[in-house]
Amino acid sequence: MTISLETPCLIIDTDILARNIAIMADRVEQHRSVKLRPHAKTHKLPSVAQQQIDAGAVGITVAKVSEAEVMAAHGIRNIFIAYPLVTASKIERAIRISEQIELIVGVDSLAGAQLMEQTAAKHGHTLQVRLEIDTGLRRTGVPYEAAAALAAEIAGMPHLRLTGIYTFRGALLAGKPTLDVAAAGLEEGQQMVQLADRLRAAGIAIADVSVGSTPTALYAAAIEGVTEVRPGTYVYQDRMQAQLGVCELEDCAGSVLVTVVSRPSADLAIVDGGSKTFATDVQPGTHPLQLRGFGHIHGLEDALLVRMTEEHGMVELGPMAQAADLKVGDQLRIIPNHICSTVNLHNHVVMQRGDTFERVPVLARGMLE
Amino acid sequence: MTISLETPCLIIDTDILARNIAIMADRVEQHRSVKLRPHAKTHKLPSVAQQQIDAGAVGITVAKVSEAEVMAAHGIRNIFIAYPLVTASKIERAIRISEQIELIVGVDSLAGAQLMEQTAAKHGHTLQVRLEIDTGLRRTGVPYEAAAALAAEIAGMPHLRLTGIYTFRGALLAGKPTLDVAAAGLEEGQQMVQLADRLRAAGIAIADVSVGSTPTALYAAAIEGVTEVRPGTYVYQDRMQAQLGVCELEDCAGSVLVTVVSRPSADLAIVDGGSKTFATDVQPGTHPLQLRGFGHIHGLEDALLVRMTEEHGMVELGPMAQAADLKVGDQLRIIPNHICSTVNLHNHVVMQRGDTFERVPVLARGMLE
Repeated sequence: MTISLETPCLIIDTDILARNIAIMADRVEQHRSVKLRPHAKTHKLPSVAQQQIDAGAVGITVAKVSEAEVMAAHGIRNIFIAYPLVTASKIERAIRISEQIELIVGVDSLAGAQLMEQTAAKHGHTLQVRLEIDTGLRRTGVPYEAAAALAAEIAGMPHLRLTGIYTFRGALLAGKPTLDVAAAGLEEGQQMVQLADRLRAAGIAIADVSVGSTPTALYAAAIEGVTEVRPGTYVYQDRMQAQLGVCELEDCAGSVLVTVVSRPSADLAIVDGGSKTFATDVQPGTHPLQLRGFGHIHGLEDALLVRMTEEHGMVELGPMAQAADLKVGDQLRIIPNHICSTVNLHNHVVMQRGDTFERVPVLARGMLE
Repeated sequence: MTISLETPCLIIDTDILARNIAIMADRVEQHRSVKLRPHAKTHKLPSVAQQQIDAGAVGITVAKVSEAEVMAAHGIRNIFIAYPLVTASKIERAIRISEQIELIVGVDSLAGAQLMEQTAAKHGHTLQVRLEIDTGLRRTGVPYEAAAALAAEIAGMPHLRLTGIYTFRGALLAGKPTLDVAAAGLEEGQQMVQLADRLRAAGIAIADVSVGSTPTALYAAAIEGVTEVRPGTYVYQDRMQAQLGVCELEDCAGSVLVTVVSRPSADLAIVDGGSKTFATDVQPGTHPLQLRGFGHIHGLEDALLVRMTEEHGMVELGPMAQAADLKVGDQLRIIPNHICSTVNLHNHVVMQRGDTFERVPVLARGMLE
């Protein structure tokens, strides 16, 4: 089938999208005391965030103040900025948002907390904060062992209200990437609940224990004491999640439509999507996923998107794909390795409802600041 | 120095930019019969394209019809779309542009040429085309040996005017990536001039012999018979070009300003730029560049941007960098490995003129279609 859309473009199947939203909402709901707060980094669209909330999510998660601004401006009323804000200007922007909607922000250092306290005091405002914990990913987050001391300091700041703790680590077990997402999720939940208990024993009120990624959310949610999960990718799913066993390729709502622009040889087709179209942050062969190529090509078993430059995708054709006799002008649909960073490359997505296609601007795309 | 800009942001030093533009223009001008047609994929800005033209460039190169539309709408009057157009809608858009400005488009297949001929005929228009040649990169481009037959077909199509041939391959020697950019450029120029002579001997008029990338342009330009070079990256330069010996790090006009958001341990600083901020298409360690990390960090010799997630950059600090005692809130400037794909991630660049900073929208960013 040739679809009359300009390529390359990212198509979202709205039936699969709705199903993914419903399944996660239902599964989280089975854990009575756990709330769902999806990370909006995957779709970057207020309309999809609203669908998630309509299905039962308590609110959304974002990484940037600018993302929160876009989401709040489009009607999302409950947002967690899961990122440490460490400059006065960003803290002031967060305060402005929190005057309009329910907002929580991340903190992971004393310096950050002090600047937040000062800035909130100056504006006569109280900011809701959660303390980020490093549970092994080694990016932001106070080291696990140092969390109690920092939490005590923050709890004593009059213009900050410490609502709880959170972590992110994805599929990690004992500090190492793993395919055993169940064990990863259980370990993540247990670590965080133990820490929350320790903080409470030290007299610090901890309401929220927020964890989870798409692969680990439902396992972590099973741990008594976890109160919130923040999966993101599940909304569209992607090839990486399929490889992790979290979903099937049929559950991937997002695929990139490309056109064959050149057939220089029998074993090679060049398509009009390269590294400006498909994210390159999840490289082929990376441990432990060992993905082959930059995407899964629909309907051509042994075709592989092996190499890209900015505007060119090099598709290597095995014997079966060669038999398909691809011609210049033919279209292919490719499921990207990592949908979140791929969405970030697209100014628009095409929402497919059966045979109708609607071009929708990705409003919170490219929000860096 | 702390600059009062929201981070992360991509800063372009306009003095270095002007110098890079002038140097390339001067050097190309030394080859009397060679014209400069910079690839605008690096800056994606009509204003910078105009600077290049003011300095002597004959026009610009783009990869997409949508880029040509933006550039033409903002006053650029001479554009080469160096990409095969193989669908009627894109060819029609190109025809519309060519009714307004001087336009040449790429072609590399008989099917593409036939569709172009039909579409141009339908609109009573003649399209200027150049035949793309594969000289070893194995992406688009008719295989070298098949070029004469295809060129003859195209030359016979009444609504196409074949102006010449072009190739792109970057730093490649005998089909393999190389650090010997001089030899690569000479080989590239020779191959294309030989082919042009062969086509002319077969009675096909070939005016343009267009070659070159930033590393190879000036070497290829030295080959008698080359008529045009299309370097792109030189306008900003980047860490990859410095590694190739094409420039010094001091010649890089573009750097990303980031803020340290977390200091979880003595040997680690987390900055607020990750894979949404720095392109990941040029990976550390890739042959033959062997770059260490995802960028060069100004002023911290043994600091390395070793790992990224979407919004986090993990900077490993050696003994010297640890002595600098980076604090949460401090800023760093990082030269990206690949500036073109990094620019594509930024909705705005900040043009720095001495102590003044102007935020400029990257008008032709994210043009996929």
